[in-house]
Amino acid sequence: MKTLVIGGAGFIGSILVNKLMEDNKDIIVIDKLSLGSTAYIDTSKVEFHPLDINDIERVLSVLNNNEISEVWHLAANSDIPAGVENIDVDLNDTFLSTVSTLKVMKAIQCKTLYFASSSAIYGFNKNRLHEDIGPLKPISNYGAMKLASEALINASFESFLDKVCIYRFPNVVGVPATHGVILDFINNLKKDNSVLQVLGNGTQQKTYIHVSELIDAMLFINSNTDDGMHYYNIGAMDDGVTVKQIAEETVNATFPEAVIKYQNIDRGWVGDVPKFFYSVDKLKNLGWTPKQSSLGAIKQAISEIVKQEGI
Amino acid sequence: MKTLVIGGAGFIGSILVNKLMEDNKDIIVIDKLSLGSTAYIDTSKVEFHPLDINDIERVLSVLNNNEISEVWHLAANSDIPAGVENIDVDLNDTFLSTVSTLKVMKAIQCKTLYFASSSAIYGFNKNRLHEDIGPLKPISNYGAMKLASEALINASFESFLDKVCIYRFPNVVGVPATHGVILDFINNLKKDNSVLQVLGNGTQQKTYIHVSELIDAMLFINSNTDDGMHYYNIGAMDDGVTVKQIAEETVNATFPEAVIKYQNIDRGWVGDVPKFFYSVDKLKNLGWTPKQSSLGAIKQAISEIVKQEGI
Repeated sequence: MKTLVIGGAGFIGSILVNKLMEDNKDIIVIDKLSLGSTAYIDTSKVEFHPLDINDIERVLSVLNNNEISEVWHLAANSDIPAGVENIDVDLNDTFLSTVSTLKVMKAIQCKTLYFASSSAIYGFNKNRLHEDIGPLKPISNYGAMKLASEALINASFESFLDKVCIYRFPNVVGVPATHGVILDFINNLKKDNSVLQVLGNGTQQKTYIHVSELIDAMLFINSNTDDGMHYYNIGAMDDGVTVKQIAEETVNATFPEAVIKYQNIDRGWVGDVPKFFYSVDKLKNLGWTPKQSSLGAIKQAISEIVKQEGI
Repeated sequence: MKTLVIGGAGFIGSILVNKLMEDNKDIIVIDKLSLGSTAYIDTSKVEFHPLDINDIERVLSVLNNNEISEVWHLAANSDIPAGVENIDVDLNDTFLSTVSTLKVMKAIQCKTLYFASSSAIYGFNKNRLHEDIGPLKPISNYGAMKLASEALINASFESFLDKVCIYRFPNVVGVPATHGVILDFINNLKKDNSVLQVLGNGTQQKTYIHVSELIDAMLFINSNTDDGMHYYNIGAMDDGVTVKQIAEETVNATFPEAVIKYQNIDRGWVGDVPKFFYSVDKLKNLGWTPKQSSLGAIKQAISEIVKQEGI
């Protein structure tokens, strides 16, 4: 029985695959390599197919004769502003990738799904975001298409799935960094190390988790739940750090002389949720808490990404 | 300035179009005529195009040179069990129709959207369903794709729309009946008027509204709200009627000797929400209440559909 990881060569997917290999899982990875890379996984030990999950026919043909006991679906667009500009980005990569995953699972009769969702499904809501809160009003196409994915998975659970775990990620940091605020800052500083221009006024405040802790949490949820539909926020046990703090930490770790400049608006881009407060009580009650604070995760990730980028 | 009605030749759409014509609106209807019919609208007074909204290029070409001030999006699959069997049905007709609507609106720079959503977005939830309740766990692909549509509309409101009204319909009855429980019962009784086989045990209980009242409510919401994102449950002010009641009323009105048979399960099909209790307080607070009870709506609709079907 094998494990299929869709998006398994990306930032989070590749770390997950490496972790699952430690547990001696027999793994098949499908990844279209938009931001992912085969450099991140050991393709001598993992069966790898450079395919878009939306190319269902080819996916089914490479899966032929394999018995798949569980599917991880981690494939999604990760450029939120690009998805707001062009609806097709999140439609194809964040939502239709889920439709295709469900079609493939139905075809191969696999009934266990682990799905990477997002805090973005909640949208802009001033209340503390526990898992059962309403209303859900995502403000980016990315958040909308993650919510759409959850909805369709829920209907599929009603009709043919046995076990589903949905993980609602906050911002996740670490290496191999393929995108995200820290990498953006470092790339900009590489171009001009005298100034760092920040999108928004720096007061945007979010909770962060290091990718290693995220994966630990996901595996904990899987092994501590039975058949059924399970959904958990994963995050730090604090109210996060501001963009200003991240900018200052990044500048300090790279080019301490750089001047940080801000804009006069409270969000970085259309669809950016400027501030949210996450509840992780449900996960805590299941028995898992993170070791690191949001700030701790940011500091660890900055040091790792600085190294990755050779500064 | 014209009004575009997508799905304007269907059951609800055609009644809406006729009502808007009374208000001297200049109307363009797009409908792919899957269940709709040009017989339902006066095509000498309405510009009609037999197009699938998902055929965006052709839609844009027929809209060329028209200034559209508002769009009604009423196009959707209405066969819920068929959508559970084949995910593509609701994907294309219930969700991608919304994606296409939004793409068209962005292209023609129209910023007012009226959208037909559904109580099915809530899924199976024992609490009274007010508009801001959570969690949202639709159990049919239809409900999932209505929720997905709402989510994407919300993100589009953040980026380019000015006014959105989302109407969450309960079950809607009346003529021209193209689908639904009463028409199903009558069609089955026409085939064999000695017996009526009901899906489920008859205890499924839902709230119903007559199409004339539904349209009245939608127009009331539109004219009593300003720019912004508005979403309202529309429904009767009672807890609905059971399938058993509908079966008995239908049999009494058609073939009173027919024996009604039930199944030994609490729902009619996979994805059927067996019972839900709707809150219409938000709409009541806006100033609108229906004149009819659920049972009143059912009785009126049975008498109309009996006539339509020539019994």
